[in-house]
Amino acid sequence: MTREPRLEVEYCTQCRWLLRAAWTAQELLTTFTTELGEVALIPGTGGVFDVRLDGETLWSRKAQNGFPEIPTLKQLVRDRIAPDRDLGHSDRR
Amino acid sequence: MTREPRLEVEYCTQCRWLLRAAWTAQELLTTFTTELGEVALIPGTGGVFDVRLDGETLWSRKAQNGFPEIPTLKQLVRDRIAPDRDLGHSDRR
Repeated sequence: MTREPRLEVEYCTQCRWLLRAAWTAQELLTTFTTELGEVALIPGTGGVFDVRLDGETLWSRKAQNGFPEIPTLKQLVRDRIAPDRDLGHSDRR
Repeated sequence: MTREPRLEVEYCTQCRWLLRAAWTAQELLTTFTTELGEVALIPGTGGVFDVRLDGETLWSRKAQNGFPEIPTLKQLVRDRIAPDRDLGHSDRR
């Protein structure tokens, strides 16, 4: 059974980005402990590193030409699932 | 979009078991790099630490009175999604 909000981190296995994907997942689950329904780690190929929230792409490595910064991801997720949340020192609004 | 086979790790946030859940996810995704469709980390409560594969409970901390050993989990997953796979030195059949 899928839980929502569902965050997906799709990563390239050929590039060995599992550790980065798992780190990203843990950062988001630490900040949004009870607000996220689940975070799915999805093995992919071909240099993919995409982060999606309920189907909306928040970050795509190819489109944005690099990996996401964690504070940036947290702001993108916060704006969608916990808009009143203050993210502390990393939060530049 | 959910991928199958889908492995779920539901963990108790009150017990701070995210790190254990994420470690479990990484162990399974390292061994079953391309055989798993996704691994979902699911925040739960009340001492839950359950591992499910496509809805089937492989391990439940409460029912089995403890946490799963990683080699045991790998064998349970292997038997279902990659029955011909040899898991190496940790594999006692």
